[in-house]
Amino acid sequence: MSNQDLERIRLSVKELASVSIEKLKKYLSLPTVSAQNKAIPETVDYVVGMIKEIGGEAKVLDDLGGNPVVYGFFPAGKKGDSSKTLLFYNHYDVQPPEPLDEWNTEPFKPTIIDGKLFARGASDNKGDLVARLSAINVLQKLEGGLPCNVKFLIEGEEEIGSPNLAPYLEKYRDLFHADACIWEFGGKDEKNRISMVAGIKGMAYMELTCVGADIDMHSSVGAYVDNAAWRLVHALGTMKNQQNEILVDGFFDGVLEPTESEKQAVHSLPFDENAISRLYGLKRPLITKSKGVDPREAMVFHPTMTICGLEGGYTGEGAKTVLPKKAMAKIDCRLVPGQDPDHIFHCIKRHLEYHGFDDVEVKLINGQKAYRSSYNHPFVTHVLNTAEEVYQNDVILAPNSAGTGPMYIFGEQLKLPIVSTGVGWVESKAHAPNESIRIQDFEDGIVHIAYMLTGFSTALTEENIAVEK
Amino acid sequence: MSNQDLERIRLSVKELASVSIEKLKKYLSLPTVSAQNKAIPETVDYVVGMIKEIGGEAKVLDDLGGNPVVYGFFPAGKKGDSSKTLLFYNHYDVQPPEPLDEWNTEPFKPTIIDGKLFARGASDNKGDLVARLSAINVLQKLEGGLPCNVKFLIEGEEEIGSPNLAPYLEKYRDLFHADACIWEFGGKDEKNRISMVAGIKGMAYMELTCVGADIDMHSSVGAYVDNAAWRLVHALGTMKNQQNEILVDGFFDGVLEPTESEKQAVHSLPFDENAISRLYGLKRPLITKSKGVDPREAMVFHPTMTICGLEGGYTGEGAKTVLPKKAMAKIDCRLVPGQDPDHIFHCIKRHLEYHGFDDVEVKLINGQKAYRSSYNHPFVTHVLNTAEEVYQNDVILAPNSAGTGPMYIFGEQLKLPIVSTGVGWVESKAHAPNESIRIQDFEDGIVHIAYMLTGFSTALTEENIAVEK
Repeated sequence: MSNQDLERIRLSVKELASVSIEKLKKYLSLPTVSAQNKAIPETVDYVVGMIKEIGGEAKVLDDLGGNPVVYGFFPAGKKGDSSKTLLFYNHYDVQPPEPLDEWNTEPFKPTIIDGKLFARGASDNKGDLVARLSAINVLQKLEGGLPCNVKFLIEGEEEIGSPNLAPYLEKYRDLFHADACIWEFGGKDEKNRISMVAGIKGMAYMELTCVGADIDMHSSVGAYVDNAAWRLVHALGTMKNQQNEILVDGFFDGVLEPTESEKQAVHSLPFDENAISRLYGLKRPLITKSKGVDPREAMVFHPTMTICGLEGGYTGEGAKTVLPKKAMAKIDCRLVPGQDPDHIFHCIKRHLEYHGFDDVEVKLINGQKAYRSSYNHPFVTHVLNTAEEVYQNDVILAPNSAGTGPMYIFGEQLKLPIVSTGVGWVESKAHAPNESIRIQDFEDGIVHIAYMLTGFSTALTEENIAVEK
Repeated sequence: MSNQDLERIRLSVKELASVSIEKLKKYLSLPTVSAQNKAIPETVDYVVGMIKEIGGEAKVLDDLGGNPVVYGFFPAGKKGDSSKTLLFYNHYDVQPPEPLDEWNTEPFKPTIIDGKLFARGASDNKGDLVARLSAINVLQKLEGGLPCNVKFLIEGEEEIGSPNLAPYLEKYRDLFHADACIWEFGGKDEKNRISMVAGIKGMAYMELTCVGADIDMHSSVGAYVDNAAWRLVHALGTMKNQQNEILVDGFFDGVLEPTESEKQAVHSLPFDENAISRLYGLKRPLITKSKGVDPREAMVFHPTMTICGLEGGYTGEGAKTVLPKKAMAKIDCRLVPGQDPDHIFHCIKRHLEYHGFDDVEVKLINGQKAYRSSYNHPFVTHVLNTAEEVYQNDVILAPNSAGTGPMYIFGEQLKLPIVSTGVGWVESKAHAPNESIRIQDFEDGIVHIAYMLTGFSTALTEENIAVEK
């Protein structure tokens, strides 16, 4: 790895850029909405085609149900180290494009405006897959070929919680065996610093439903008939207090304390309270303020319990005097390492029963464990160092993101360090209308992946790993 | 008043029945939905036409805003007592017909099936107006003509809370001056007993809104950003406890104790807990049970605080991990005599501020005071006694309904006794799809009104009234 390597890579990426962008635009024109079961087979074909086109081996795994998982393999080149393998995790499915009327362009007609490429999936996560494949293509054309083996796991259900991924990883553990993994997403913050995570929070997403009657009633019967909406409100009120403290017994069971280096890392993360307040238009101070908690610590290390949705009775204009038969709340608990979504679900059920709310039913919709890779692993450091060289800017590395993904099952089955980096930017608007990436970030992302690969084997020498341990 | 009078009336009603039903069907074909501002002018014309057609005087009052108020007047006949006047209160507007796909017939195509007339407004309240006008027509054709003066007040905004009625009643107090009033609605219970009320509960319908941010956020920020839905849940939790006790300071200010006779009356009201439980498919016991309260007392004498609607964030299928910018609740407080909706509104605002919820905004959408007529007034007794004769069954009389209407402003401006009776039945489904009346009830209702009118003046002699006082 040298400055010359980097310059050679930059030149080569520049030459290939227009081809890469055309490939990405075609990929983005496929409306692969997993929640709506759209365009899955043609997207799988397209992904397999992209792998084979640049000499890779591709397998479509579909024997365990759900949308197919695509396996891709590129062997180390003649001068490469075939004893080391890097795995990329990506997903070919995207979020639903709705609400459509808030898009300035059509979500599945990729459009470049002012150096930005707008389309659903541009940042999450089709742009990253094409950048990674392009990096491989670039290295193959340079003298010596690929510096190590590269594998891909590209699934089609990430946007619906990866419900079928675990059995594939278990059955095909040997196929996906690797020494380290680059996670699917990432991008630049408001100061154009690449922001990486070496872990991810888990999730227990639940629906709480209280049914009080078979039909909606005239509200005058409220004098003697119990009210599902009041029941739900009181049930929720026992789960978290006004000071935002979670009151469910057992909720914090098993929470792993962060290591000293993770704690220190959090304190070097950027966090601009005023900027966040302005960005969202917050009406109240951060909840961490009154507790004297560092919001960065809360973001990374504290589990949450969030009401994502509330519904019951009449919610239209004006007055309708109804006593609703039913009320419902959606609750999202973000979990930290050591917490188990099934246990959380069980604790909430037990809590509601204990407090007399056996009429409030709980359903676990989505459960994922948190995962934290080793923050100081030489691989993580290597990805970070090469990013600093390529982007010529500080790089932010958090022990884990505040968001969620199926990282735990990778860690559990494959036992490997994981870090996430990608081609997004601060206004990528993943999951929202007008999703975009910047063309320059896309090209720089290709450079970073290619440059990182050139030093990958060296970074993972036994001595380096021993030092970390 | 004699048995002969009653038989003569029955015969005459029978003769006129088909004409009355045709008139009603035409009236019901007008889609007079006040909430959607539909068909108001043509309905006013039709109502005026019905009054004039049978020799009445009609005035359209529209100088104080809102949908016009129709005044109707029929003078006492030659042998009648022109010193006494009965006022009928009706409304020509109807509830929205939605949800349309739950109707078995078209809501504005009146259809007779098995002796039942189906249409929006059949029971609430177009059927009652036509029955009352038909009763007048019947009496006019009998020897001696109308036994007293009859007035009508027919408004067009009852279904949206009569927001403009008070100024009309104040300005036209003399025009509407009368000795007693028959209220708009009524009907038979599950045992075919006519069920009357001599009063009505009031209402304070409010919308509580908490806005936490300008935009919906990714739920991962729940670690440090406050949540409007949690705020609203906790705010509501301070207003009523799990035992369904209202905790708002000042809420019960001014509540008038019912009289001894009203209390006794309540204990003679029918109330079949099991039947109600089956009718609604209730999943829990009545809330009065654990408190040892008679549900009939609660229904008539206790104010309520009901959540009619709850809304916030994502409420569709599955999981969307959003921290909602806003949450909203609709609250309906049914009030008893002595309570003031403006005071209730003020108390709830003060309560929320006191408990630290100054970020929860309260809006009063609909405020009406309760009203209780004198339960023992000779007029009330007269309407009850004649109903027993006509229907040959027990009659139920409650001091007030559990429902609401603009009765207070009638009592306040016109100082007169009020009782409500009408042509509905237990499955009339006012405000719901498949609203209906039974043709036989409609005809019997005409008979009752006509028969009641023949004895009206005698019932209201000074001696009778003195005894009651």
